[in-house]
Amino acid sequence: MTLATDVLAGKRLTLARLLTLIENEKPEGREALDQLFSHTGKAHLIGVTGPPGSGKSSLVNQLARFFRTAHAGDPAATVAVVAVDPSSPFTGGALLGDRVRMRDLAGDPGVFIRSMAARGALGGLARTTAAVVQALDAAGYDIILIETVGAGQSEVEIARLAHTTLVVEAPGQGDDIQAIKAGILEIADILVINKADRPGADITERALLAMLEFRHPTRGNHHRNAAEVPHEAWTPPVLLTVATQSEGISALVEAIRQHKKFLQDSGEWKTRDRERLQSELDHLIEHTLVSQWRTSLPPRQYQTVLANLTGRLISPYQALDQLLEAQTGLSQNHEYI
Amino acid sequence: MTLATDVLAGKRLTLARLLTLIENEKPEGREALDQLFSHTGKAHLIGVTGPPGSGKSSLVNQLARFFRTAHAGDPAATVAVVAVDPSSPFTGGALLGDRVRMRDLAGDPGVFIRSMAARGALGGLARTTAAVVQALDAAGYDIILIETVGAGQSEVEIARLAHTTLVVEAPGQGDDIQAIKAGILEIADILVINKADRPGADITERALLAMLEFRHPTRGNHHRNAAEVPHEAWTPPVLLTVATQSEGISALVEAIRQHKKFLQDSGEWKTRDRERLQSELDHLIEHTLVSQWRTSLPPRQYQTVLANLTGRLISPYQALDQLLEAQTGLSQNHEYI
Repeated sequence: MTLATDVLAGKRLTLARLLTLIENEKPEGREALDQLFSHTGKAHLIGVTGPPGSGKSSLVNQLARFFRTAHAGDPAATVAVVAVDPSSPFTGGALLGDRVRMRDLAGDPGVFIRSMAARGALGGLARTTAAVVQALDAAGYDIILIETVGAGQSEVEIARLAHTTLVVEAPGQGDDIQAIKAGILEIADILVINKADRPGADITERALLAMLEFRHPTRGNHHRNAAEVPHEAWTPPVLLTVATQSEGISALVEAIRQHKKFLQDSGEWKTRDRERLQSELDHLIEHTLVSQWRTSLPPRQYQTVLANLTGRLISPYQALDQLLEAQTGLSQNHEYI
Repeated sequence: MTLATDVLAGKRLTLARLLTLIENEKPEGREALDQLFSHTGKAHLIGVTGPPGSGKSSLVNQLARFFRTAHAGDPAATVAVVAVDPSSPFTGGALLGDRVRMRDLAGDPGVFIRSMAARGALGGLARTTAAVVQALDAAGYDIILIETVGAGQSEVEIARLAHTTLVVEAPGQGDDIQAIKAGILEIADILVINKADRPGADITERALLAMLEFRHPTRGNHHRNAAEVPHEAWTPPVLLTVATQSEGISALVEAIRQHKKFLQDSGEWKTRDRERLQSELDHLIEHTLVSQWRTSLPPRQYQTVLANLTGRLISPYQALDQLLEAQTGLSQNHEYI
């Protein structure tokens, strides 16, 4: 009880402690989240992803700084940064970018920074990231920046936590035909070419615009009249930034705000919120069912079946049948033949 | 029954049909796999992964061609290629590289090529990839090349299917400090710098060697005497190739064969086989438990609970409790408080 009330009262140390409890999947963390959950749903969740070397950490840093200051009618917002490194199950790479950020934003009570490295399975990371974001949302941060490294399926899953997803490229990365394979473009609400002072930024921009054209045929003025363009459509803009020089940041923030307005006006805000919570619930169900099953299984049974499997005496599906039979006492065979 | 016997008899069309049945998770596919499973465990499974643009498809192509020919005492081997694209849940990007390969290797009865794109969840892809590889193994292919696009957690999971994992980089990709973050280096048995005729190959090589030095402090001659070096240790070599010019391929194949010998002599071959099968079994269990639970749940129950969740009336963990209670009729609360 104290934990949740202290977080709602804005106590940073308690919040930090809660996030650790959540990361370690402690019951106290779950209890506090249950109490905090009705306070969530207010923050604007912004995902930032893209290939290594595109300068995501610097960009997130600059965005955080910009949001912290009032600009022409937009009040200063409080900002939380969650840096997630799903591609690094072995090394603690996230800490490097984190130290850079700390130097720049440390001491500002309106900024809260947390980095998370992958521990164990991907599902676990998506699950704890969702919970960490909820705690920060309940704690009252207006903007939550979720930064992920890489461009694989795992980043796609974490990006789905966000309302607005920024995909960051750097010159020379986006012009290769294989880069299309990454599929990450499909989840972009806003495309950012960072390090735009490097040679080849124009080529990358043309390549990205061409890919967007392919994906959104109504882009540009190819439609015959305005009535053909669905009013609710969002065409991802392509923006150039040089994060290390603070260039292009205000235009990027403007695009982020426009996207938020689009989400709210079109009803997408609610849809994305629902999808996010459903995905989280599904992950929880999966995790819990497997844990419960494992706990109820006789300890040696699993090892015996595994030994028969590695000896090629039984197939993986036969091993599955034997393990499920061991638990329920009923043959599950009819489901697999 | 016919399906399995025909596959064992080397009928390619039946094999192709079986792989489709496996991908679509049909009961006939499972039945055939049960019968084929005792014939698996012979093929050398080689994973090939790395960032987009590193030229993996060309390299796999060249490796397949090389293995197909007898060289100085090594007989020609039969080769299967499984091209997996986990980072592309939306577009069928894998097909592009596939067409290039087809042109080059088509018509050779000792080569079998299959591409797989992600459908739905990551777990599903890892599961079906494992099963596809088993079918090819049982069908008698000596070498199975498993190619994945990208450098995230999903690629790590698929790479774990292999005995020998090649991580491919191209010049200009490996010298960025952020590339260390990818973590993919940790799973490399052999490092390949492809496109080594491009400028910067030497920088990439030095960067990779430096990272390996950090990871394997005994690399080089830093140990005082031979007794300090564990005999069973494998230090990943760094090899340069230009796949499009067939340069460096024979040295790479030699390193692959040395790694296979190391695995067999050290007992690692058996360990990796066991880990691979255990991971597959765990995925199967997870998938089956969730499917069974979902089937047994009253259809509207899930929607009602989800509506309460999105309305912030209950938390994700409270939603989980309600769904598990609905099924078992018992309160699961004690597990979460």
